[in-house]
Amino acid sequence: MTLKYYFDLLSQPSRALKIFLSVTKIPHESCQVALRKGEHKQEPYLSVNRFGRVPAIDDDGFKLSESVAIVRYLSNKYSVPNNWYPKDVKGQAAVDEFLEWHHLDLRLGCAMYFQTRVLKPMLTGQPPSEKSLQMFTERMNTSLDNFENLWLGDGRPYLTGNQISAADIFAACEIEQVAFGGHDPTKGRPKLGVWLERVRKDLSPHYQEAHTFLEKFRTASSKL
Amino acid sequence: MTLKYYFDLLSQPSRALKIFLSVTKIPHESCQVALRKGEHKQEPYLSVNRFGRVPAIDDDGFKLSESVAIVRYLSNKYSVPNNWYPKDVKGQAAVDEFLEWHHLDLRLGCAMYFQTRVLKPMLTGQPPSEKSLQMFTERMNTSLDNFENLWLGDGRPYLTGNQISAADIFAACEIEQVAFGGHDPTKGRPKLGVWLERVRKDLSPHYQEAHTFLEKFRTASSKL
Repeated sequence: MTLKYYFDLLSQPSRALKIFLSVTKIPHESCQVALRKGEHKQEPYLSVNRFGRVPAIDDDGFKLSESVAIVRYLSNKYSVPNNWYPKDVKGQAAVDEFLEWHHLDLRLGCAMYFQTRVLKPMLTGQPPSEKSLQMFTERMNTSLDNFENLWLGDGRPYLTGNQISAADIFAACEIEQVAFGGHDPTKGRPKLGVWLERVRKDLSPHYQEAHTFLEKFRTASSKL
Repeated sequence: MTLKYYFDLLSQPSRALKIFLSVTKIPHESCQVALRKGEHKQEPYLSVNRFGRVPAIDDDGFKLSESVAIVRYLSNKYSVPNNWYPKDVKGQAAVDEFLEWHHLDLRLGCAMYFQTRVLKPMLTGQPPSEKSLQMFTERMNTSLDNFENLWLGDGRPYLTGNQISAADIFAACEIEQVAFGGHDPTKGRPKLGVWLERVRKDLSPHYQEAHTFLEKFRTASSKL
């Protein structure tokens, strides 16, 4: 049985995991779930993931959601090169530390900005209120400053050392999204700029392929 | 060298990890960091955790933050009974799925309610606005309903099956906090009520010891 991967490239963890599957060369069948049609909240998808979110996997009947849990499961089960998710205890803990930190910091900060600045206005036809846009822009900038100063502050080329890992993939996908939403995350953050360019290049062409779909938002957001 | 554990029992992940350390009998030195005095934002603590949050560990010079990352590190390094964090790939993935899910769902829902209903009024002397209290109460209730229906819906005694795991510890600490904040999370949620009572009993006396400090909030919140 082939591993089935359920995703929509509109979702940043879906993109991150798609890139992870590509760079680690894990054979999988791509199963698209169209968020814009509400397919994630209906059967048959709810039988794959009862939470009605993407991404998820079905590995010969074993169903699992939550992108970070899936990275760990795949790294435990498949032959994944050590740099992406290290096998040694401390190296793995360092990647875990970022993946756990990012949920309520980088991910929340960037996702709320993108929703407020781009997604909601596109869905409702109404521009965001100045107050909420200002609040979410500030939160995002705080997260990005933390990223620049606390994660990239020591000058290492990647988030957890000298090798690219799953942490870099997840971080880049969150940060790239705000760039597509009309905000330059690298402005005033030179380390983030150098790091993002390095990660884009290392993950080429999978990274660019996963972000093709977001191009439409760059155009749309410039008109809002 | 002894493992140093830095925490404040005012923080729910600090309580969860303290209970985890107790039930797994991992030898450690307790290092309290007083949030109310701002010790988490100052040296010497910032040299342990540059993010200025609790909990964190220092394991013979290896410093690690993020409670879920710490659970994994300790389970990899120490002899932790299998039920708390399973060694088999699928069992571990099931615990991971909950721990990842909880950040932006149960944790965000419960923590924002507690902050709005109890912490901010205590710090500022001002009651919460009705609008924000209503919004965060609704979010918390949605998370608790998801917990009742999606995690406990199939009638298993614990979150991931027939044995208690780290997932149950983290979930109970989040949910217990709203109970201390003056909201009964079990009302209208019979499965949650039975599960919470079972977990409290299984984790006794460590669970009760970790929550002693929160008793003052039960009294304080009843006066707000």
